[in-house]
Amino acid sequence: MSYEFAWLDYRNSVAAGAGDYLKKIACTGFEIASEADKNILFSAEQELMRAAKEINGQQSTVLKDEVTSEGISVVLSDAPGLKTGGFKIMITGPKITIEASDASGILYGVFRAITLIRTGKTSDGQIAESPASPIRMLDHWDNPDGSIERGYSGRSFFFKNDHLYVDDRTREYARLVASVGINAVAINNVNVNDIATGLVSGYDRKELTEIAKIFGDYGIKLYISLNFASPMSLGATDTADPLDSKVAQWWKEAADGLYRDIPELGGFLVKADSEGRPGPFSYDRTHADGANMLARALAPHNGLLIWRCFVYNCQQDWRDHTMDRARACYDNFIGLDGQFDDNVILQIKNGPMDFQVREPVSPLFGGLKKTNMMVEFQIAQEYTGQQRDICYLIPMFKQVLDFKTYNGDGEGVLCDIVTGKGSKQTCGMVAVSNTGDDPNWTGHDLAGANLYGFGRLAFNPALTSEEIADEWSRLTFCNDDTVADGVTKMLMMSWPTYEKYTSPLGIGWMISPGHHYGPDIEGYEFSPWGTYHRSDRNGLGVERGKTGTKMIDQYNEPVRSLYESIETCPDELVLFFHRLSYDHVLKSGKTVIEHIYDSHFEGVQDVNEMIGIWRSLADKVDGVRFGRVNDRLDGQLMNAREWRDRINTYYYRHSGVPDKQGRKIY
Amino acid sequence: MSYEFAWLDYRNSVAAGAGDYLKKIACTGFEIASEADKNILFSAEQELMRAAKEINGQQSTVLKDEVTSEGISVVLSDAPGLKTGGFKIMITGPKITIEASDASGILYGVFRAITLIRTGKTSDGQIAESPASPIRMLDHWDNPDGSIERGYSGRSFFFKNDHLYVDDRTREYARLVASVGINAVAINNVNVNDIATGLVSGYDRKELTEIAKIFGDYGIKLYISLNFASPMSLGATDTADPLDSKVAQWWKEAADGLYRDIPELGGFLVKADSEGRPGPFSYDRTHADGANMLARALAPHNGLLIWRCFVYNCQQDWRDHTMDRARACYDNFIGLDGQFDDNVILQIKNGPMDFQVREPVSPLFGGLKKTNMMVEFQIAQEYTGQQRDICYLIPMFKQVLDFKTYNGDGEGVLCDIVTGKGSKQTCGMVAVSNTGDDPNWTGHDLAGANLYGFGRLAFNPALTSEEIADEWSRLTFCNDDTVADGVTKMLMMSWPTYEKYTSPLGIGWMISPGHHYGPDIEGYEFSPWGTYHRSDRNGLGVERGKTGTKMIDQYNEPVRSLYESIETCPDELVLFFHRLSYDHVLKSGKTVIEHIYDSHFEGVQDVNEMIGIWRSLADKVDGVRFGRVNDRLDGQLMNAREWRDRINTYYYRHSGVPDKQGRKIY
Repeated sequence: MSYEFAWLDYRNSVAAGAGDYLKKIACTGFEIASEADKNILFSAEQELMRAAKEINGQQSTVLKDEVTSEGISVVLSDAPGLKTGGFKIMITGPKITIEASDASGILYGVFRAITLIRTGKTSDGQIAESPASPIRMLDHWDNPDGSIERGYSGRSFFFKNDHLYVDDRTREYARLVASVGINAVAINNVNVNDIATGLVSGYDRKELTEIAKIFGDYGIKLYISLNFASPMSLGATDTADPLDSKVAQWWKEAADGLYRDIPELGGFLVKADSEGRPGPFSYDRTHADGANMLARALAPHNGLLIWRCFVYNCQQDWRDHTMDRARACYDNFIGLDGQFDDNVILQIKNGPMDFQVREPVSPLFGGLKKTNMMVEFQIAQEYTGQQRDICYLIPMFKQVLDFKTYNGDGEGVLCDIVTGKGSKQTCGMVAVSNTGDDPNWTGHDLAGANLYGFGRLAFNPALTSEEIADEWSRLTFCNDDTVADGVTKMLMMSWPTYEKYTSPLGIGWMISPGHHYGPDIEGYEFSPWGTYHRSDRNGLGVERGKTGTKMIDQYNEPVRSLYESIETCPDELVLFFHRLSYDHVLKSGKTVIEHIYDSHFEGVQDVNEMIGIWRSLADKVDGVRFGRVNDRLDGQLMNAREWRDRINTYYYRHSGVPDKQGRKIY
Repeated sequence: MSYEFAWLDYRNSVAAGAGDYLKKIACTGFEIASEADKNILFSAEQELMRAAKEINGQQSTVLKDEVTSEGISVVLSDAPGLKTGGFKIMITGPKITIEASDASGILYGVFRAITLIRTGKTSDGQIAESPASPIRMLDHWDNPDGSIERGYSGRSFFFKNDHLYVDDRTREYARLVASVGINAVAINNVNVNDIATGLVSGYDRKELTEIAKIFGDYGIKLYISLNFASPMSLGATDTADPLDSKVAQWWKEAADGLYRDIPELGGFLVKADSEGRPGPFSYDRTHADGANMLARALAPHNGLLIWRCFVYNCQQDWRDHTMDRARACYDNFIGLDGQFDDNVILQIKNGPMDFQVREPVSPLFGGLKKTNMMVEFQIAQEYTGQQRDICYLIPMFKQVLDFKTYNGDGEGVLCDIVTGKGSKQTCGMVAVSNTGDDPNWTGHDLAGANLYGFGRLAFNPALTSEEIADEWSRLTFCNDDTVADGVTKMLMMSWPTYEKYTSPLGIGWMISPGHHYGPDIEGYEFSPWGTYHRSDRNGLGVERGKTGTKMIDQYNEPVRSLYESIETCPDELVLFFHRLSYDHVLKSGKTVIEHIYDSHFEGVQDVNEMIGIWRSLADKVDGVRFGRVNDRLDGQLMNAREWRDRINTYYYRHSGVPDKQGRKIY
């Protein structure tokens, strides 16, 4: 599949005079770097050359160890005050100096400088930036057969026909994600099938090594998702018991072999005892037993073991109202706090359920005190429009990062936990990737903003959603204020819009099992998956407060009290936490049923507004991309209408309450 | 896949002394038969030999043109008063005489005589029987890849790996269905895919010819389901317009070629303009135009063209309450009455919708006066338990056949129309087959009763459902009164039971789109398939009377008035025809909501009762088959509970009416 260059297409229009900076490029201090770092520095040089060639239409040469009075100077030195990956950019008239104390800092500084040049932000001044989150990771759910679980952008570009493969696109991918600061990538699905199981023990080792090498050129560490039962599945042992010495030995040898070939391997990612995956529970062992055994195989190589906390009973009986899936993550892990080795990180989904359009933050972030944690986001829009409908997720991620966990002495926002400002420095942010082999990488062109934005946010959570959207639009489409304003407006509307026309007030899950799109209001209502809204003629929702499943008690005070009281619980989450009658009056002043009707009508109007904005940009965006987005918007309007009509009809049939405004409910 | 012999396993226990009849077998008059008929007579002889060998454990010889005073005499002669396929059986002491005037009559007489012998019904007397329905047909929905659409008994035994194949099972199949009088079989799915399209024009002609030959040995005519757009699909023409002379010529040549190789071919079966299949509507032609064009290609060879009437809009908007799929079959065909050629037969599903557990009879049977008709049943239990749950359908078929159409002067039951007692003699009964390559042919052992029963009923609609069940049980399991009584009781309970625990009062469709099992109460509620129940807090159902879609007007008086009035409309169909509130009092004296609760609780009790009956037979049924049925009954109990609990919960949530008896509703 051919591919485009997304926000790295330097041929897209750039600020006037931008090319002047790129006529001279000088690099200093590179000779002190290690071999591995030299490869990263080479990538940085190449990036500048590429920008120069594409913007100026002619090759530049790179001057070594020379100081110039104009153009770009790249300086590797012991600059104080910069963390790994940090950089300074100084702009003085015609000269831009990029300084860093390590190779990845140089690479990130170069990408940043090119962005500043392309967007015309080159007035005199100085920027110093260091990455906030130590691990900035993408998890790909790619399967060896080339399919992608929850992939909405075509097929895998890592796997084809049960094998890894490496081509030009591998490097383009590494450039793309490194340009926004990604430094860790797991390339295979956490649901590890038969063939992928072999990746840890030699299957396609040559290609795996090649991919790791290309990633390394861009400062990215490769991770492998593994099958907890690998030694059994591969026939080496008759158990996968983590406390069995043969099992531990098998993993030690597997890790030793991997690091022999791939010294820069990041480590392993594990989904265990979850949705049918094997895990330590089969042997009456704890998740700490399981994770630590694997971590000890990695420790001699400084590898990390990332353990997912998405553990719940997926064979629940819908009749049983006492069980609550929203409790599961906290209940399964809170008792293990402090039992995990130093090189284990728990990967915790942002919410207690599963990447719904609106969820509260997982209470586990406020609960664990002595455990390394990463937050897991999903930019693959599994439950948020599947890259058919626009849903810019950065504003949601920022809300999550800003959530006050009260974990520790003060308020303590979640962002602190994952950026090393809490008690633990081994931490980070991860997103399930939204990429595939579609030419534009993300299926929907505007979904590129989520890929871009996630990286930027993990690097610098202080950025606003609007800043990220504006920058992405300028780099992707053109450096034009009207386009940037229009695209930013569309993106900023998109999450609230998607929420309005899908499920109301935090209740979620009005989708079909299997493909996870909707509307399918009772799709999960009688399923074993633990995701119910229990709508009846009087109201809807699951009570999670003191009179219900007590899930709210998992939060620290004062969050617990805030959510417990219907008076203080925010409207947008009120049906996540409480069962309400249709005539309950929200803080907005509307009843629940009025809110359902109004929000669904508004959602469709909002899509129409987005369409209007996009169409107004027809002359300023190239035809191919304009048309692609336009087509998807037409589809989104149809989708939004279908959600609106089905949900309004469903709740009208249940409640019997006519719409105050007399709008059409079928 | 290995196979069993179902009701033709002569080794199963038989009545005492049965074998004595089979010690001498004499045949007379066979020399006058044509070559094709000689093959059928040979099959009849072989069947007697097989019975003798299996029952007596030793070979018998067949005496030719000899009269014996004991044993079996088979006489082909010009016996008066017998239609094609008819026979007489005379029993006098130790002698049984089978007489018929054509070869198929001999074959059916022989199978019948073996049944009488095995079941001990050999007291002196005479039986004379002629087949009621001229065409007694099975439609197989088998695809070339070996899958079976709506198949619940394994894979196809006609197709494998995109090819027809012939093996021992082909002949066993022919024996099996001929033994109950089937004389027509369409072997490929009415949804004709690319490869199957070629069957009319030479694809796998060798195998097709072999199959036709084997069928012919048992008096069965082979039919082929065809793709209306075949000449286009195969690249011979650029249109499939039935009035285009190139198209007609192509079909003529295709038919000529087929009959050259297979002189005994029955003809074609066509699904056109239905669920995405091509048809005459694409060319603004009528179904009469399309059918007649094909019929004229078959006419020189005395072939029949069977045209399905399952034509409706499957892209309906659920918001549009004015459209009614139940009207479609009648509306599409009533205007064409009298326009079809003599060798065209319309194949009309028993109900106006699609093989639901309860439907009224299709009003088209009462509407068409000058058109050949067949009734299409479905023994593949697509909507009636999928051969996981027991559902003996013969009682349903008998109700359909007994329906008074008021088509003509008197009451006129539907059975008359399909057995040639109406204005048209070209007619018949067809069932979508429930067979596959499972060892027992039908997945669920008890589903064999539907295959057996359909054939017996088409041959002799005067048989009672109990007689058929009793006979089938004796032949299949053992000739034991306790077993026969128990199995008959289970079978006779099974349709009402399935109806009780699934959808109430004729409303249907509480299943998932795609796989068509349930419970999935709103599975079709917002779909484009035209199948809605529109349940709300007040009631449920689609009004099809004068204040609604007026579908009831398609019936002749007095049926129309009977259904129109809620006072006279039978309870079991009342929600098919009318929208009712939950507190409406049925003729049973219960409210609708009470009926819903009660019937669902009863349905589960009934399954428990069936389980009790089956377990009481443990010592009398062989272990393999006992265990298979027992396992499926366990599954049925789980299924029934799930239906009960979901439907009761759904209607409790909507109605808010508690169960009078305080039973558990979740």
